Amino acid sequence: MKLKLPTRSDVTAAAKRIKPYVYETPIFRSRVLDEIAGANLIIKAECLQQTGSFKLRGATNRLLQIPEKKRAAGVVAFSSGNHAQGVARAAKRLGMPALIVMPTDAPQVKTDGVKADGAEVYLYDRNSESREEIAAEIARKRGAILVPSFDDPMIVAGQGTVGLEFAAQAKAHDIELDHLICCAGGGGLISGICLGLSGQSPDTQVWTAEPEGHDDWKRSLEAKTIVSNAPGTRSICDAILTPRPGDITWAVGSQYLVGGCVVTDEHAYEAMRLAFRQLRVVVEPGGAVALASALFRLPETAKGKTVGVVLTGGNVDSRLYAKVLSREV
Amino acid sequence: MKLKLPTRSDVTAAAKRIKPYVYETPIFRSRVLDEIAGANLIIKAECLQQTGSFKLRGATNRLLQIPEKKRAAGVVAFSSGNHAQGVARAAKRLGMPALIVMPTDAPQVKTDGVKADGAEVYLYDRNSESREEIAAEIARKRGAILVPSFDDPMIVAGQGTVGLEFAAQAKAHDIELDHLICCAGGGGLISGICLGLSGQSPDTQVWTAEPEGHDDWKRSLEAKTIVSNAPGTRSICDAILTPRPGDITWAVGSQYLVGGCVVTDEHAYEAMRLAFRQLRVVVEPGGAVALASALFRLPETAKGKTVGVVLTGGNVDSRLYAKVLSREV
Repeated sequence: MKLKLPTRSDVTAAAKRIKPYVYETPIFRSRVLDEIAGANLIIKAECLQQTGSFKLRGATNRLLQIPEKKRAAGVVAFSSGNHAQGVARAAKRLGMPALIVMPTDAPQVKTDGVKADGAEVYLYDRNSESREEIAAEIARKRGAILVPSFDDPMIVAGQGTVGLEFAAQAKAHDIELDHLICCAGGGGLISGICLGLSGQSPDTQVWTAEPEGHDDWKRSLEAKTIVSNAPGTRSICDAILTPRPGDITWAVGSQYLVGGCVVTDEHAYEAMRLAFRQLRVVVEPGGAVALASALFRLPETAKGKTVGVVLTGGNVDSRLYAKVLSREV
Repeated sequence: MKLKLPTRSDVTAAAKRIKPYVYETPIFRSRVLDEIAGANLIIKAECLQQTGSFKLRGATNRLLQIPEKKRAAGVVAFSSGNHAQGVARAAKRLGMPALIVMPTDAPQVKTDGVKADGAEVYLYDRNSESREEIAAEIARKRGAILVPSFDDPMIVAGQGTVGLEFAAQAKAHDIELDHLICCAGGGGLISGICLGLSGQSPDTQVWTAEPEGHDDWKRSLEAKTIVSNAPGTRSICDAILTPRPGDITWAVGSQYLVGGCVVTDEHAYEAMRLAFRQLRVVVEPGGAVALASALFRLPETAKGKTVGVVLTGGNVDSRLYAKVLSREV
């Protein structure tokens, strides 16, 4: 089956479409962080987005393209959290019902966020049930539309507005982004960013950032074909744990990405602490992986250069965050 | 002695002057916070400013007006923390030496911030020594310029750019600020904001926010003359504990301010937790007092209205922050 791939102009169209529904998130600099990294970091705090992650962008772009007459039946999604909140918020803004299939072990902050936006939550057991099957079955029964979390052209185009916006912000400050590092789970964001940058900042070298044991993007890029993670590997970075790159996201991302960075959970924790101290921004473990990569695993070729870094999510349970600050994890 | 008061055009000039040195800080909305407050809150996260507080604005405005030939002798300031960091950063950017007189019990994050910008720190005992005398003596010996933390026309004008910027951001989003709440210590920020708003948003009603026992602004406004706090009252809100309104800040602020809000330390903690959860922004206790006021002590006349709230600082020790999140304080 031939994949329908998103294009650069899909990202431009998405940016226009979702503008009234999302924040332009700020960019920050920090001399202390630059010294640790050995590079000039330009940090885009997308974790300050409404719902606390970039996922609102893709969800809003997707839902806005559902025809009026189909909206009453609503949407269904499955997600461990940030996509769930993005879909719930987008549905609320457009007056659509939403049901989210979430694992029983999702961080409470994320299930709370979904409920606060009026969506239904259906909990499933990550170890014994298939969320895909559950969500498809519910969508079928309701006549609702299933909103994938990454492997969808309109989701990719929506997330890609982060790249377009970042390029415009850099330009406004006379900054050229030599490199950009962004975390990769399924790859909706990073592939969208590649598209978004390809028009505005085509010389920027884009790198994935992943936690150890979940470096499927890095290894896929090296193998030049999709490879999967070994099942059962754990990481605290709940937001970006997916078994392999998506078909669509890979087809897009592999055209542009230059390589991948890999960090430990401890690197992610330290990046969270530094974002707290130097930027006063709350970042969740998965959302801190790109910063951790820039600080502790920066590719040699990026040393001394200007490096864009995306903080992608800030939905972290307060107990875990307190432990990270207190170095109890 | 007739006081030299800052004017509205001083604020406009300051905004132009300091633009290359400061961030335009973002504004946020949150439906959850709106529901708690019973009003439409527009929250300006000035705690995301470089150095973690608005103090950089006033310090930069002041230092930029020191003639070139006087810059080599440097500047001296006394401050428990945020002004210290603002002066240290501004001095660094302008290549001037800086010495800051700080209390021995200042939060370590604040002394660290000052040192990271290359300033000297002179520690004094809050209970037995006069920081004013120490700073004046050092400045005299060095031929350095003493940079007051609030009671100075150029400091007030610099802080007032927060108000000008807030008004412009509201306008860009078609928002009318019916009210605005901002914390008041010495009153440099709040009086500057009054000036900044007076041209751009003259109908906005401006309220002070203060911690219990340090409600000198509220009581002064009621008495229509400067009154002081009882000595010895404690609060966790270290950034905004001053004995009384300044002469200049009072002369300006009392022309515009409509009244004051007073909150407990517990209110401030809860506002910190809500900013963490709903905005993913780190706020220090003193910096959270305006949000706490909006959420828990909103004046009746502001209910149901659009209320601007300024988060003024985010420099909080990680241990205290972890305790606040864990409800151990």
